[in-house]
Amino acid sequence: MATVIDGKGLAAKMRAEAAKDVAALKRAGVNPGLAVVLVGDDQASATYVRSKLRDCEECGIASFDYKLPADASQDEILQLVRNLNDDPKITGILVQMPLPSHLDAEEIIEAISPLKDVDGFHPTSLGRLVRGLPGLRPCTPAGIMVMLDEYNIELAGKNAVIVGRSSIVGKPMAHMLLERDATISVAHSRTRNLDEICRSADILVVACGIARLVKGDWVRPGATVIDVGMDRDEDGRLCGDVDYDDVFNVAGAITPVPGGVGPMTRAMLMSNVVTAARMQAEA
Amino acid sequence: MATVIDGKGLAAKMRAEAAKDVAALKRAGVNPGLAVVLVGDDQASATYVRSKLRDCEECGIASFDYKLPADASQDEILQLVRNLNDDPKITGILVQMPLPSHLDAEEIIEAISPLKDVDGFHPTSLGRLVRGLPGLRPCTPAGIMVMLDEYNIELAGKNAVIVGRSSIVGKPMAHMLLERDATISVAHSRTRNLDEICRSADILVVACGIARLVKGDWVRPGATVIDVGMDRDEDGRLCGDVDYDDVFNVAGAITPVPGGVGPMTRAMLMSNVVTAARMQAEA
Repeated sequence: MATVIDGKGLAAKMRAEAAKDVAALKRAGVNPGLAVVLVGDDQASATYVRSKLRDCEECGIASFDYKLPADASQDEILQLVRNLNDDPKITGILVQMPLPSHLDAEEIIEAISPLKDVDGFHPTSLGRLVRGLPGLRPCTPAGIMVMLDEYNIELAGKNAVIVGRSSIVGKPMAHMLLERDATISVAHSRTRNLDEICRSADILVVACGIARLVKGDWVRPGATVIDVGMDRDEDGRLCGDVDYDDVFNVAGAITPVPGGVGPMTRAMLMSNVVTAARMQAEA
Repeated sequence: MATVIDGKGLAAKMRAEAAKDVAALKRAGVNPGLAVVLVGDDQASATYVRSKLRDCEECGIASFDYKLPADASQDEILQLVRNLNDDPKITGILVQMPLPSHLDAEEIIEAISPLKDVDGFHPTSLGRLVRGLPGLRPCTPAGIMVMLDEYNIELAGKNAVIVGRSSIVGKPMAHMLLERDATISVAHSRTRNLDEICRSADILVVACGIARLVKGDWVRPGATVIDVGMDRDEDGRLCGDVDYDDVFNVAGAITPVPGGVGPMTRAMLMSNVVTAARMQAEA
């Protein structure tokens, strides 16, 4: 029976810390402000944006809500981002992904000032991670690192396996674990013997978007299993990339879905807004 | 008995291609120009710089040689880099590493315009690699990819193990192999069971700086072995990180030292100078 990693509780603690940091920044004359840009009317995206705005309120962070129509042009969004870069009230800029398909998301991400890149998606932010330099880190892997540390999971010299190779989860996760002296492997849809590779993991991070892919016999007894998935099973129920009931009896520690990685990602955004405001105040 | 991968011959072919590309660029009114900045009088660095200038000459690339004293200040070098960024004659900037220890190399690398970053060390260049965007790639791993392709080494679905986690070889190598659908693992000095991990590799890239570390029984029969090392053994002889004589009978293909990765790194620099000049002409 695994220890259940309480992402929800830990996220609440992180938000409380962010609120304290924000209060201290304000006393020093620094006012963090997050701009959230939502293009189009995707319901899931709108829900995510609302919860981010609510988190800002809880942490005492000013938020600025920009809603653009689904047919907004690339130039219109680039111009908005440039204005936000130049606006001293705005210390963090988040463009909610995914964008409508007629837009070039990469160009829009690159237009954000790396100093205000609270999502940590900008190439300069990712490159600073690769070089081990300070900077803004993608929220999901950064939140996972906090969880691993809070539960005292040993990383140095351990085998960490990451299933999934996105530039916002899998790849930065690999760098963060490598920085902490884990041996890392990145597996993906083209990997052969995926089950065998997963069994070699002391720490297994699954971010592939396939409902309940990872079974109990894919997991080494006692391993730490981090489930980034937010999937629907054939009955439409929310589940992760890990078959929780099956893995629960094998793993040493496991994150639930929901209540694991998701809340930590949101809380890490608040922490990044604090970090970005500090970076700009010091620049 | 392994196929010996002829880095030297392949590098000559690449330089000839770069020379053709340079000639075509010049006909179109674009003149590639490489600035090479050498600080101090380290003999090995001076030798590297001379060979790079010679390569430029062979390829028809104008080169501009900047020699600064060992006690040059950070501000002096930053100012030089900024001048080179603004100079239209200069399409590529290379600051020879390592720099004297009183200098902040990271700040100097970040001062180089990513458009002129022919070493591919800038965080923005590395981040563009992580995101799979076009950009300038670090020469050593990019040269290794050319070798793997020239020898038709299959990568998709294969296990690639990289020993070493520097931001100029190991980490970008992992991304390049991942981009080509290999399953990747990065091992290093803190890795346990390094021999076992090496044996799981279909493609093994060794860049750890330990003379003849990798033995024949660390290598899966038929594997491709790429040796990035340039070490001295106890008798002062040049050797790689791989015990060549021992591994030669096991591997399917192997790079020699010298004559393997080294010349490819140099040739890739010429190729990057061409790419940078093109990027600036199109910008």
